[in-house]
Amino acid sequence: MMRSIAYLLLLVVSLSSAASQADLLVEKKSFSMQNYTTIGGQTIAEVTIGWESYGALNDAKDNVILITHFFSGNSHAAGKYNSTDPLPGYWDAIIGPGKAIDTNKYFVISSDTLVNAFPHDPNVITTGPASINPATGKPYGLDFPVVTIADFVQVQHALLSSLGIDKLHAVIGPSMGSLQAIEWAARYPDQVERMISVIGAGAMDAWSIMALEHWARAIKADPNWNNGNYYQAQAPLAGVTNALAMITQNAMHPVSMNMRSPSQAVLPEAGLASVTNSLPALDYLFGSAALRAPLADANHILYLVRANQLFVAGHNQDLATGLSAIKAKTLFLPASNDLLLQPYLAKQTVALLEQQGKNPQYEEIQGIWGHLDGIFSIASKADTIAEFLNTP
Amino acid sequence: MMRSIAYLLLLVVSLSSAASQADLLVEKKSFSMQNYTTIGGQTIAEVTIGWESYGALNDAKDNVILITHFFSGNSHAAGKYNSTDPLPGYWDAIIGPGKAIDTNKYFVISSDTLVNAFPHDPNVITTGPASINPATGKPYGLDFPVVTIADFVQVQHALLSSLGIDKLHAVIGPSMGSLQAIEWAARYPDQVERMISVIGAGAMDAWSIMALEHWARAIKADPNWNNGNYYQAQAPLAGVTNALAMITQNAMHPVSMNMRSPSQAVLPEAGLASVTNSLPALDYLFGSAALRAPLADANHILYLVRANQLFVAGHNQDLATGLSAIKAKTLFLPASNDLLLQPYLAKQTVALLEQQGKNPQYEEIQGIWGHLDGIFSIASKADTIAEFLNTP
Repeated sequence: MMRSIAYLLLLVVSLSSAASQADLLVEKKSFSMQNYTTIGGQTIAEVTIGWESYGALNDAKDNVILITHFFSGNSHAAGKYNSTDPLPGYWDAIIGPGKAIDTNKYFVISSDTLVNAFPHDPNVITTGPASINPATGKPYGLDFPVVTIADFVQVQHALLSSLGIDKLHAVIGPSMGSLQAIEWAARYPDQVERMISVIGAGAMDAWSIMALEHWARAIKADPNWNNGNYYQAQAPLAGVTNALAMITQNAMHPVSMNMRSPSQAVLPEAGLASVTNSLPALDYLFGSAALRAPLADANHILYLVRANQLFVAGHNQDLATGLSAIKAKTLFLPASNDLLLQPYLAKQTVALLEQQGKNPQYEEIQGIWGHLDGIFSIASKADTIAEFLNTP
Repeated sequence: MMRSIAYLLLLVVSLSSAASQADLLVEKKSFSMQNYTTIGGQTIAEVTIGWESYGALNDAKDNVILITHFFSGNSHAAGKYNSTDPLPGYWDAIIGPGKAIDTNKYFVISSDTLVNAFPHDPNVITTGPASINPATGKPYGLDFPVVTIADFVQVQHALLSSLGIDKLHAVIGPSMGSLQAIEWAARYPDQVERMISVIGAGAMDAWSIMALEHWARAIKADPNWNNGNYYQAQAPLAGVTNALAMITQNAMHPVSMNMRSPSQAVLPEAGLASVTNSLPALDYLFGSAALRAPLADANHILYLVRANQLFVAGHNQDLATGLSAIKAKTLFLPASNDLLLQPYLAKQTVALLEQQGKNPQYEEIQGIWGHLDGIFSIASKADTIAEFLNTP
């Protein structure tokens, strides 16, 4: 029987929170704004994103921590929608009453991004190529403007402004969420007091730009993609499946993958009969990806890839210039065994900040999950995060 | 101007051999055998593979070292066909008169494999799906039987037998060549005195089986692949290009890739205009791959992927059983920064050999090339290799 990766994640997260207190119950809300103009100078008539919050906003509105999500994630960072949900949000191990990001003290707000990869997930609210273009009454497709991490951040800024919030005690995110966190600190330096980058980077290097492209190429190679025009036809699920399988593997590590994958007979009969036959490890990886593919949108993944490929903190001349604007205290938590965004990326950003006379903190997360140690092993840095947040 | 990876490799190899003596001139030869029966029990009417040799076979025919090549490589391991060739063979740094694999002492023979990935390279002689099936007068396509690393080795064994050689002083290969070297030691234990595995593994694990599959999926996703029937039509060059780009990236490392790739403007105009536009780093990686794609055959790559996916030394019950047959002295040289076949794979094989009371040697190659340190940084292990070969 094939055990899906979703099931695996369920097990891991369940185990890691087995002893937790009563579930934090949360609800998804949404925020809309009209005529948003992108960094590239295009105007989107209406953008809507989802968000969640945990804890209470104080009267001074100065106890706010913003959580920004990773490539395959969404704003469900903590708690459950219903007590019967199999899984809490992805960082439930560190967000909640008495936890590292203590919702008894802080108003924690978690935001969806534009062009979320899984717009058909009922818990995702996003705007992107699959959204209806009010000018045509049909999905935008590739008419949707290219957006950047800076656009994600500007829309989040508008969301916070709508709540009367003009200062962040901290902004924290893993992976693509780290890019948003750094962008926040660079773009709104007077509004961000602390920034925590988990499994992240200050800019994409050529290596990472290329690594992301393989995901995009898998989608573009599917004839059903049809240059982005598939909303009245069959979605390019084969291409999306291949992309999601690559994303999963890139985000993991041999130790954890080999622990979970079924083993293979010496000279497996089917595998030896034809190169078109599958193998147990492939059923495991690609089967899990195929189950999730219908919740994704192919164009959204392409837009997310591009947003990441274009990233350099501040989007201003170069990385050093972008970082020079940052006034926040910073903490970097890459994962030692990360094979996707290796620790050298965080180290390069830290080195630049140090050259600018700043005092970034740096610690590595240990674990067997590779990039995903930023999610599954985050509790190992709970004390570091709590101390960073609670130091004035 | 785009600098191709081929050009980059040229530079590296040229620099590394700049001070070498007069070029070793070599010629490609070929070996054919009739009615070869595969490990899977299928018969191929005729198989032909290419080979080269350096140095002279002694009268006792006991000074033979066999070199087995990597996934994207061929039997051109050393020397040049003509003194004007831009590049010598891939391991020229360690094969030649007075070098670590000293052709003044040893008769070094290097063999092509079945289903070589680049059958349209004029210096490759191989048999595979692109070969003419004598039963039909047309290319085999997917009618060609699945072959294994053990089949590569059995055909090489027939080649050596045809030369009257029944003992190997050593067998040495990098990457997929390492798989062949280990298979030689496990399959013909009384004929192999020394085995050197460079950037290799004793068996593919689930992680590696999955990693290889992304290359295959890229090809199968191309509509021109047409279930392997494209020999009378357009070859699936787009799929092959995507596969070769992945192979290149998987075999490299961020440090070397970032040194060579062109940099990107902050907010590059074309990249911001459309997700269908390219970026400089992508032109570099995929442009190089596209240049090499016409020399490859899509089906051959699929068969090579499958041969690797099925590998376990000895193809007998499990890895420990296969290794238990080995009588050769063994040396393992993984690369510390390898992201494709990480050192844990060699370590696992070494640990099993040690449990069996054997005495494998183990050293790691250092460098900035990742997996390709097994090629480009091999000279750093010249002394280790020479000592291993020259110790009785």
